[in-house]
Amino acid sequence: MRESDWIQRYIAPLVHAPGAAGLLDDVAIVSADGPTIVSMDTLTQCTHFLAADPLDTVGQKLVRVNASDIIAKGAEPVEALLSVAWPENGDEAEFSALMQGIGRDLETFEIALIGGDLVGTSGPLTLTLTLTGRCLRDGPVRRSGGVAGQTLFINGEIGWGGLGLRAAKKGGSPDLVRRYRVPQISPIAAAGVIAEFATASMDISDGLLMDAARLGAASGCGVQLQLESVPLAQASENIEEIIAQCVPGDDYRALISAESDTAIPGFTAIGQLIPGPGLQLSHRGVAVNTPSTLGFEH
Amino acid sequence: MRESDWIQRYIAPLVHAPGAAGLLDDVAIVSADGPTIVSMDTLTQCTHFLAADPLDTVGQKLVRVNASDIIAKGAEPVEALLSVAWPENGDEAEFSALMQGIGRDLETFEIALIGGDLVGTSGPLTLTLTLTGRCLRDGPVRRSGGVAGQTLFINGEIGWGGLGLRAAKKGGSPDLVRRYRVPQISPIAAAGVIAEFATASMDISDGLLMDAARLGAASGCGVQLQLESVPLAQASENIEEIIAQCVPGDDYRALISAESDTAIPGFTAIGQLIPGPGLQLSHRGVAVNTPSTLGFEH
Repeated sequence: MRESDWIQRYIAPLVHAPGAAGLLDDVAIVSADGPTIVSMDTLTQCTHFLAADPLDTVGQKLVRVNASDIIAKGAEPVEALLSVAWPENGDEAEFSALMQGIGRDLETFEIALIGGDLVGTSGPLTLTLTLTGRCLRDGPVRRSGGVAGQTLFINGEIGWGGLGLRAAKKGGSPDLVRRYRVPQISPIAAAGVIAEFATASMDISDGLLMDAARLGAASGCGVQLQLESVPLAQASENIEEIIAQCVPGDDYRALISAESDTAIPGFTAIGQLIPGPGLQLSHRGVAVNTPSTLGFEH
Repeated sequence: MRESDWIQRYIAPLVHAPGAAGLLDDVAIVSADGPTIVSMDTLTQCTHFLAADPLDTVGQKLVRVNASDIIAKGAEPVEALLSVAWPENGDEAEFSALMQGIGRDLETFEIALIGGDLVGTSGPLTLTLTLTGRCLRDGPVRRSGGVAGQTLFINGEIGWGGLGLRAAKKGGSPDLVRRYRVPQISPIAAAGVIAEFATASMDISDGLLMDAARLGAASGCGVQLQLESVPLAQASENIEEIIAQCVPGDDYRALISAESDTAIPGFTAIGQLIPGPGLQLSHRGVAVNTPSTLGFEH
């Protein structure tokens, strides 16, 4: 790899924003039209993706995990910086595939690549994306704005991440494997809905139960979830099967709190914020023991 | 390593900006008071630092290589996001040392840490910093603004990076080793001088000769350097010894062009932008052959 050649061959074609100066300078100009937020997520092989995952899907996942954070805050993705630590023995066709996946989802989520870094490494592929977002209200919707009595909502099905990972490891249907490799995240349009209605919000990356407990704790509340209301990848009346879909994470949908009498487009009510700390689960009116493992940090 | 524990124990104490929300949310709010630029640099063990380098010095270098980019653009460093991919067998005392070094230089360069990511890796330590800067004029001083006839200036000695690396690899004086591990970069005050006087500017990370050629090419000019004018780590009249200090890079001082009749505080004139392409070297009026290797990409 000659870094400057690969930058010009594979990364520069993804760059159109005038602030990037065609990647021919040392810095980029950030657009700041109103309140601007920023997220940074790193994916490293074996920890966040499997050696067998095609690199175009890894590139898409990198964009998606960051875009999910921004959208869940009631903001639209705007500009990205990309760092790639590329294995010394990695070949150029694979690098091209990685960039194709990144380019595909930069387009899907209307993100302008403005800069970054490319380095060689003796270790596994390590990718970092820094993504800015334009808030659709006066600032980001924090985790901490919820109030006891408000309703909790999510905007997609829970469980695909875990089911997809199992399929990828043990051999399962290509459709299921793809759910793990290229997660369905909140669409850009959800950002406007979240900015309009949510009192607190976050994306569900580490498992519904762990992240619901976190949103409650950040808001100084407890959380009550009605498990029968949670939209699941595989519908079930079996408590163990339901919990098994709520814990693995990697689902990247938005979890929000809002006034309880509101119907929120694209969102499903799954529980409430309650006074006092802790996470309480029920299924069809019957209390369910909280599992000892609530989620996994991704 | 439990990521959330280490974030709270070692990283959160470095965070004071209100936009960071105490690292308890998913995104940070970027300050944007005037034109804002951003750089992103990645350091990975063996490629950018040695396994024997103490991690507090690696942390300082990470901040410095980014701050150098921002200052050379005529901007003051403002806010940073930090990604750490931490080796699975790395111990907590080393992580603490890394954060002490980062914290020390965040303070030196008046940078507010506002977010980032911490992940485990089966490979070598890999660090990425994204750094914003506030431009001290209407935008960044680009590489491309130079005009033939203008003078080239630098603001520090060239050669310490290469001499220090050799000392670190082969055993040399601790002072020299430290020059490689914790490079002396342009001070913050240089940003104001660059914003006031420079027509083009960049930091010299990959070697004076390579970077001077790049600044010239970006400005559509050739470059003439008078080698006897270059302030060197080890003064010499021997052409080979002079060239040997100008090629290795890792020096992180600013190279600028400016109107030729200007005296620029803290800067030394070393050459000129000339019509036509190419790099021409001379020593006390005698032409010197341009070496085949001009520098190294860091």
